Amino acid sequence: MDFSSKLLENAVQEISQLPGIGKRTALRLALHLLKQPLQQSQAISKAITELREGVVFCSTCHNLSDTELCEICASQKRNKSLVCVVEDIRDVMAIENTGQFNGVYHVLGGIISPMDGIGPQDLTIQSLLDKVKREEISEIIFALSATMEADTTNFYIYKLLTPLGVKTSTIARGIPVGDDLEFTDEVTLGRSILARVPFETSISKS
Amino acid sequence: MDFSSKLLENAVQEISQLPGIGKRTALRLALHLLKQPLQQSQAISKAITELREGVVFCSTCHNLSDTELCEICASQKRNKSLVCVVEDIRDVMAIENTGQFNGVYHVLGGIISPMDGIGPQDLTIQSLLDKVKREEISEIIFALSATMEADTTNFYIYKLLTPLGVKTSTIARGIPVGDDLEFTDEVTLGRSILARVPFETSISKS
Repeated sequence: MDFSSKLLENAVQEISQLPGIGKRTALRLALHLLKQPLQQSQAISKAITELREGVVFCSTCHNLSDTELCEICASQKRNKSLVCVVEDIRDVMAIENTGQFNGVYHVLGGIISPMDGIGPQDLTIQSLLDKVKREEISEIIFALSATMEADTTNFYIYKLLTPLGVKTSTIARGIPVGDDLEFTDEVTLGRSILARVPFETSISKS
Repeated sequence: MDFSSKLLENAVQEISQLPGIGKRTALRLALHLLKQPLQQSQAISKAITELREGVVFCSTCHNLSDTELCEICASQKRNKSLVCVVEDIRDVMAIENTGQFNGVYHVLGGIISPMDGIGPQDLTIQSLLDKVKREEISEIIFALSATMEADTTNFYIYKLLTPLGVKTSTIARGIPVGDDLEFTDEVTLGRSILARVPFETSISKS
């Protein structure tokens, strides 16, 4: 592209480095910002800089936080002996939105994925083991995605936790609520039959 | 969404004000920036602020520029008596990329669109009329999109230019090069028959 303005070219160049944003979209965004009041551009710039410079990882659960201890870990109302292992902050937000979990989290910061060059040492697994040794943990709940890499990560951590004698569990896999049985894939359906629960349990849960 | 970090929430809020970017995409972009070196966030912030504060409109053609007179208007090689009327900078870039035009541009800054509250006074039409009165213009070429609003804008300006006795033309509408006749819509095909050109002309043009 041949720009009449170096400033515009530079802005398009920088914006198009974001994932999923090409040069054309970047140009559209830049031209949009030029039509908006100066304050909006300044607000976006400020928010991005402050985010990158100010955000830290919670020293206990490794979730993104503004303070050394995140709100969830600092709360007196949460059950600290119940730890839910998740991949990143989006999973924390998803589980928090359900309102069904009163424990605390442990954010791995990713999953083991040799293809992407992410090994166990890149995740916060050691910190989890230290926490189990140090504190009174009644149960570790694995809440990772249902993918091959996530299953590997689950199993890797499970193997390390077993000698420590802590109780572990994973969130239930099965037919999503509201889904038609006919259109559910056979692996999910097969597993949901193997992992069937007593009828009374399913009533008391809902 | 329930954020564990106010800084993250603020960044997502600001980024999601951009057109076509929702909260989920904004969160993905913010988390991406957090994984990148600090320099990248600073570069984006700086580029956006500098763009908004530094870019001006060329005093002659109203195109975006870093200087009072844009590169095209300042160039000695361009034919100043040939003026191409376009909607915005993207059209200038598109025409420049063809390498087929050696005149200068006049950027309207939009098209007449009562639905969006854009009237003739919001565009640089008066500036075009002043330019025609003041300078030696041999031809005004309309290069707006082939939409209803663009046609209205074309006609509105044409009516104002007629008393000034300047030659006007519009870019050719017809079958796009490489297109199959069979799949061309009937309006375009009908117009391309009405606006047929002598065979010799079509050869010399290609």
